[in-house]
Amino acid sequence: MSLRPNRPLPLATPAGVEVLTRIITEEPIPRVEIARRTGLSQAAVTKAVAPLIEAGFVTDQPTGPAEELAEGQLGIGRPVSPLTVVADSVSVIGLKVTPTDLIGVTTDFRAGIRTVRHQQLSGTTPDLVLERLTTLAEELIGALDDDAGPLIGIGVAVSGDVDAPHGVVRDSPFMGWRDVPVAELLTEKLGVPVVVSNDVRALTVAEHWFGVGVGVDSFAVVTIGSGVGCGLYVNGEVVSGANGVSGELGHLPLAPGDLVCTCGRRGCVETVASSDAILARTRETTGRADLDLSGAIDLAHAGDEHAREAFDRAGEVIGSALAAMVNLVGPELVVIAGEGVADYDLYEQRMREAFAAHAFGAAGDARLKLRSHTFDDWARGAAAIVIRSYVRGERPFQR
Amino acid sequence: MSLRPNRPLPLATPAGVEVLTRIITEEPIPRVEIARRTGLSQAAVTKAVAPLIEAGFVTDQPTGPAEELAEGQLGIGRPVSPLTVVADSVSVIGLKVTPTDLIGVTTDFRAGIRTVRHQQLSGTTPDLVLERLTTLAEELIGALDDDAGPLIGIGVAVSGDVDAPHGVVRDSPFMGWRDVPVAELLTEKLGVPVVVSNDVRALTVAEHWFGVGVGVDSFAVVTIGSGVGCGLYVNGEVVSGANGVSGELGHLPLAPGDLVCTCGRRGCVETVASSDAILARTRETTGRADLDLSGAIDLAHAGDEHAREAFDRAGEVIGSALAAMVNLVGPELVVIAGEGVADYDLYEQRMREAFAAHAFGAAGDARLKLRSHTFDDWARGAAAIVIRSYVRGERPFQR
Repeated sequence: MSLRPNRPLPLATPAGVEVLTRIITEEPIPRVEIARRTGLSQAAVTKAVAPLIEAGFVTDQPTGPAEELAEGQLGIGRPVSPLTVVADSVSVIGLKVTPTDLIGVTTDFRAGIRTVRHQQLSGTTPDLVLERLTTLAEELIGALDDDAGPLIGIGVAVSGDVDAPHGVVRDSPFMGWRDVPVAELLTEKLGVPVVVSNDVRALTVAEHWFGVGVGVDSFAVVTIGSGVGCGLYVNGEVVSGANGVSGELGHLPLAPGDLVCTCGRRGCVETVASSDAILARTRETTGRADLDLSGAIDLAHAGDEHAREAFDRAGEVIGSALAAMVNLVGPELVVIAGEGVADYDLYEQRMREAFAAHAFGAAGDARLKLRSHTFDDWARGAAAIVIRSYVRGERPFQR
Repeated sequence: MSLRPNRPLPLATPAGVEVLTRIITEEPIPRVEIARRTGLSQAAVTKAVAPLIEAGFVTDQPTGPAEELAEGQLGIGRPVSPLTVVADSVSVIGLKVTPTDLIGVTTDFRAGIRTVRHQQLSGTTPDLVLERLTTLAEELIGALDDDAGPLIGIGVAVSGDVDAPHGVVRDSPFMGWRDVPVAELLTEKLGVPVVVSNDVRALTVAEHWFGVGVGVDSFAVVTIGSGVGCGLYVNGEVVSGANGVSGELGHLPLAPGDLVCTCGRRGCVETVASSDAILARTRETTGRADLDLSGAIDLAHAGDEHAREAFDRAGEVIGSALAAMVNLVGPELVVIAGEGVADYDLYEQRMREAFAAHAFGAAGDARLKLRSHTFDDWARGAAAIVIRSYVRGERPFQR
């Protein structure tokens, strides 16, 4: 494995970036189709593609028996095969930080997962977590195959308000972090470009470039679990928020105003819909202070009225929050994800009822789609952010 | 005035559309700057601009003493002046429909208002309203100056769920309309292309192309009055909703669940924040069934406790709705508009308090900006929709 963190992409113009983006997200794709979809001339597409092929990031050679034929041909002497990305041209590492575990993956240029490593945390202080992140990253670097491409960068996904352009976690209530310069500290230790992102936004970017979002005009990824989050893709891009905040579905004021959220505000969705809130409610109504979350889930599955009520309450406010979101943004597709998907049967009905009651007109026609979820997906999201920043020449990959 | 509804724009490619859009929305702008902002080559920009100049839609001649000098020059023999739109190259009509009045304007290619006409309505049946719209449009056509450009089309703005691609008002509770094919009926009577749009979305397009939204990365227009609406501009485009519905801020479930909305749902923002809701509440608490809205406003200004409470209640839920919107979408700027702006002093304080209490982190840094409002702005919004559809070659201006 050769560590060449600054392996440059030969992309000099915005048109070049757009061409490579189309190849990565819509491959296999013929040159003529890229021209049609972007409005660029065929000559401009050919000109942008040539150096990418020469440098080994893109190929127009058939790569396997499943390869589709080109829809259009450019003429005699021109290649007829559609363009695809050379998956092994680069390697990427994605890391997800939670208060109890670190999850790390290595991926190729298509965000295809190659290796997975989990590591338990014994604490959440920035010093400790960054030390463990470094160890985990080194382990993953060591695990890169000989035929894997050079490592271009490491992505880190953290919940909360993340200042991605500066690589700083501004405020992560789950981690108890404020103003932690993750990118700077990790880059120093590892000597590799590091990108930091809000975890839900990273997941949304992964779905946009490599997942259910490909070819969908607008979609939302709603994550349910220890928090309730939402990533939005609309008008050709993930919504990032002018001040770095967006998709805070868990903090819409839709719950009773006497409940105080971990964020300090009143009536947030998370005060009844987070897994902690569901557990607290079940403990309170059953009088069993010793319950843990899986105990509460077992009770609800066994038909315990109190436990079921806690999930009903969560389902109701999640449904109202989904309705509020579709009424405002009107996405085509809503993907339900997050670790809470494992208990979806416990709140689905009330969620759907509340959604139907409050979705306005045709906004309620948005498709709801459940996505089985693993923590590896979060780490893959962090890798997708690296790939996107690299292609776009964003910090720290400025060209 | 020559009526040439199909005066064609010489725009053959997506690049041409983008170039003209930049000129209209960012004029005066030099060719080199268009190339920089779009990523097109300077040659491509020059090629797209030439036929527009020849056909008289765009000019690179100084048009007045205030004309700025070009920031960049393309070389010897090339024009040095930045490009501007020829305002009089076309004329446009915009019409706004309300249950009591029609408002009509004529504008130039920059959506600059030239003429305004108001007309009272004696009823809201589609037949009656369409007859009056026809008369008003004919009056406005007759009022076009001799030096005004040929009329390219008529825009109609209506509140509710509007199927813009088909020109049909699907559901307008205020008008009591369902499935009214406005575009088809008016085109038949007037022989001019007609575009129909949701009124708030039209206002947002006008702000995006010609107003506060120029140069702003993301903004929301929130309209307060007989209804509560919201237009969103994010990621380079107005949010239109995959199923035609978006920005339904008035129908977020943030009010008490025992209140039934005019839309039939429970707990919508409009159940306490629409002008009708404020009036109904004031009548109820003061016991004065004879009050009208201006009477309720006078009472509140005079310090009447009951009237003030009705406005406080409205302010609180509007503030919560604004917070929900910025938490989800995170715009840079929120423009408060609509006829309710006239009574803004009565609910501003409670609105700001509720906004501050529920806005999440940096999302609350969105600038709130009050916009003085006239009904003419709604009609201008309808004209802006025509201009945008014309430039983009959308229905009914397909090229």
